[in-house]
Amino acid sequence: MRSPSYFEDFKIGVSEEFGEYTVTEEEILEFASKYDPQPFHLSEEAGKSMHFGGLCASGWHTCAIAMRMIVDHMPKTNKGALGSPGIDELRWTKPVFPGDCLRVKSTILDKKASKSRPNMGTIFMQNEVFNQNDELVMSNKPIVMVKKNTS
Amino acid sequence: MRSPSYFEDFKIGVSEEFGEYTVTEEEILEFASKYDPQPFHLSEEAGKSMHFGGLCASGWHTCAIAMRMIVDHMPKTNKGALGSPGIDELRWTKPVFPGDCLRVKSTILDKKASKSRPNMGTIFMQNEVFNQNDELVMSNKPIVMVKKNTS
Repeated sequence: MRSPSYFEDFKIGVSEEFGEYTVTEEEILEFASKYDPQPFHLSEEAGKSMHFGGLCASGWHTCAIAMRMIVDHMPKTNKGALGSPGIDELRWTKPVFPGDCLRVKSTILDKKASKSRPNMGTIFMQNEVFNQNDELVMSNKPIVMVKKNTS
Repeated sequence: MRSPSYFEDFKIGVSEEFGEYTVTEEEILEFASKYDPQPFHLSEEAGKSMHFGGLCASGWHTCAIAMRMIVDHMPKTNKGALGSPGIDELRWTKPVFPGDCLRVKSTILDKKASKSRPNMGTIFMQNEVFNQNDELVMSNKPIVMVKKNTS
């Protein structure tokens, strides 16, 4: 089952769980080398010297991985998506280590029809990312703009 | 000049501007293919059919690029950085297009010494990312943990 496409189809309070993404050391190093080359994202030794306890993924990498799982869960032809103006309360709650397998729990918190643009509305969501031990590694609250189903 | 390393060195109200990152079409497609394969991040045609007006970078890609500029601006041996528990009010205010050249303005909003851990504190920042036309394309408010200078 895929996530809803149009404004009318999002139901407040509904949660969905989806995704299965195994994070490799190679991918952690590749992302960090390019976008977040802090020592604890680049070497096991540097990670061990921190409270993280070992090499761990950039928090932005975890965001990107979560987005991939979200997009894979969208309808194949998603005619409703209009993009996102932003995210509230992004929290990195546990480090993501090589070999971790991540999944997403996505909850519809609220929705509001646009007053000025009658063909669209805003969805307020909460996304939580868990690892294979059911530990919350990340959470955030995206604001998403979607079309109404005017067909 | 590099950003501060230790808690004591961060001054509330101080802003710094740094970075120069030209975003290529190739990089937009590479990031989106891997992490955010929505049509408007993958093709000019799909972007044109949206309010974006053309192919544009994933918002998470803009976050990653900003992080790279921030890390490049950190002290070369940054002994103060303890990572970040999260980000508030992330906003994507304008699309980022191929060829855009981005830079960061970083402001110290507030700082608080930890009561329970006397060797560290928390810095509350605002990062703004501008393009070559001085348009704000992204802003966010990171929460950053840093060591005190106990040497």
